[in-house]
Amino acid sequence: MQKNRICELFQIEIPIIQGGMIWCSGWELAAAVSNAGGLGLIGAGSMYPDVLRMHIQRCKQATVKPFGVNVPLLYPDIEQLMKIIIEEKVPIVFTSAGNPKTWTSKLQAAGIKVAHVVSSSKFAVKCEEAGVDAVVAEGFEAGGHNGREETTTLCLIPAVASAIKIPLLAAGGVGSGAAMAACLALGADGVQIGSRFVACLESSAHLKFKERILSATEGDTKLSLKSLTPVRLLKNEFAEQIQLLESQGASKEILMDVLGRARAKRGMFEGDLVAGELEIGQVSAHIDSIVSAESVVNEIWNDCLSRIDQLQQNYLG
Amino acid sequence: MQKNRICELFQIEIPIIQGGMIWCSGWELAAAVSNAGGLGLIGAGSMYPDVLRMHIQRCKQATVKPFGVNVPLLYPDIEQLMKIIIEEKVPIVFTSAGNPKTWTSKLQAAGIKVAHVVSSSKFAVKCEEAGVDAVVAEGFEAGGHNGREETTTLCLIPAVASAIKIPLLAAGGVGSGAAMAACLALGADGVQIGSRFVACLESSAHLKFKERILSATEGDTKLSLKSLTPVRLLKNEFAEQIQLLESQGASKEILMDVLGRARAKRGMFEGDLVAGELEIGQVSAHIDSIVSAESVVNEIWNDCLSRIDQLQQNYLG
Repeated sequence: MQKNRICELFQIEIPIIQGGMIWCSGWELAAAVSNAGGLGLIGAGSMYPDVLRMHIQRCKQATVKPFGVNVPLLYPDIEQLMKIIIEEKVPIVFTSAGNPKTWTSKLQAAGIKVAHVVSSSKFAVKCEEAGVDAVVAEGFEAGGHNGREETTTLCLIPAVASAIKIPLLAAGGVGSGAAMAACLALGADGVQIGSRFVACLESSAHLKFKERILSATEGDTKLSLKSLTPVRLLKNEFAEQIQLLESQGASKEILMDVLGRARAKRGMFEGDLVAGELEIGQVSAHIDSIVSAESVVNEIWNDCLSRIDQLQQNYLG
Repeated sequence: MQKNRICELFQIEIPIIQGGMIWCSGWELAAAVSNAGGLGLIGAGSMYPDVLRMHIQRCKQATVKPFGVNVPLLYPDIEQLMKIIIEEKVPIVFTSAGNPKTWTSKLQAAGIKVAHVVSSSKFAVKCEEAGVDAVVAEGFEAGGHNGREETTTLCLIPAVASAIKIPLLAAGGVGSGAAMAACLALGADGVQIGSRFVACLESSAHLKFKERILSATEGDTKLSLKSLTPVRLLKNEFAEQIQLLESQGASKEILMDVLGRARAKRGMFEGDLVAGELEIGQVSAHIDSIVSAESVVNEIWNDCLSRIDQLQQNYLG
């Protein structure tokens, strides 16, 4: 492989980033991905500050390789989280859901590399202006929180690639080597993968949730809660209840009330497949095994390179 | 290039198919694409039978290369259309919106190659069982009529590619060589392109509609009319009216009444950008010129091959 901007930036061997996911990506998953040559991220979105510190410390014990933390900038204890991240000398931070201007330079002053997640070219340009080191552009097919414009990865990546000069990671719909090769063809320097890692051995998702992912089929996820914050969910009783209310034009207040508290924990961490919130991407339809994070990284990377080789043979050979 | 299954099947040089689009793809566009080495399709969906016959006859005068007709199987005068297609010895038919079992063998008995458009793996398998020669799998980002499961091209193509053995065309979100290379990486044998050809010189879309496409930006299209038949539209007063009614839980009857008749003709063919229905895909955000169909075919194909070459150099060089 020639010099890859993502590998150089994060000092990793394979340009595969494991997305930080609430209730699924603790230190075990992050360390396993980093040990496999990719970049693992601890998902701080579901962690109290002291819990995050524990995960960072354990991750440092479990790997000597670079790892990162994903921080949603709208997190209430954001100041405390960032303080811990800087104190613990985390080398890489991925931020999302907020303004990249607020934290980027402070983190960089502490020697931290910063990437920010967006769902449009417009925000990708704002990230570049804010001085981030890399952008993650995430399409409509991604699990969890999602953009309002519903731009798919296939349309988003070439647009962002031509709008910015800094390194670009493609996210949303990437769970295979074929999809990774496609994203590289679209102009990404690497990929961020979420759903495929949720179903890994080292993920902290409840086993029932992992098994439900294996049985998911095409059309089993839906972008929901559009009148609050759009989020892609696996269909279940809870998601259907929300969808029905939305189709009837329910107010935000009614939706917030039904949503209640701790729905995501209940679904993904505690395994309540009926009343819990199950965040997962469209690629869940094609996940059919629970294997180690290392196997996922190797399989996707090797398949990606094979696809590129095959393309070359078929069309330029 | 090695043997390509789509090129062999349709006896064309470049595996780029111009999708049949109501009010936009008459004989001039279809002949121009076929003359450029791709496959042009006349969109019969907006044509009375005698108008279709005229377009087929003119197309035969304008090109000696293979061309086809796209026929929505729910068309009211379907028997008459098919009779004309067979009488006029059209070599290729793309069918959509209906059961591929009904017409495939009858058309094939007349020496016609048949492809059918789907939006899920499940229907791709049904097409294969019905004996079609090729499948077009079209993702959520596509303009016009769309699937209910909202599966994006990036997720759909690898799934369909592993579900069927017959040749596969990727559609939805393909308006550049980068996207074409991505689709080939995903396992497609070629692509079907709609929106990019709407804005061509030879398209019969109204100039005002073509110019509106040039000014479209990310997020300007939306999947609408989900409670009737999902269709991706460019946002305008009409689309917003429909969206508002849907968000308020309007009945099908109310929506049908607002929709009225000839909305698509009014928008795309007559250029009423306010009250007309403007069907276009998400790639409209990245179309910035009105050029000949030949230029589009050549640019996409050459860029696609360059991307493949670049991928090979970057990752296997």
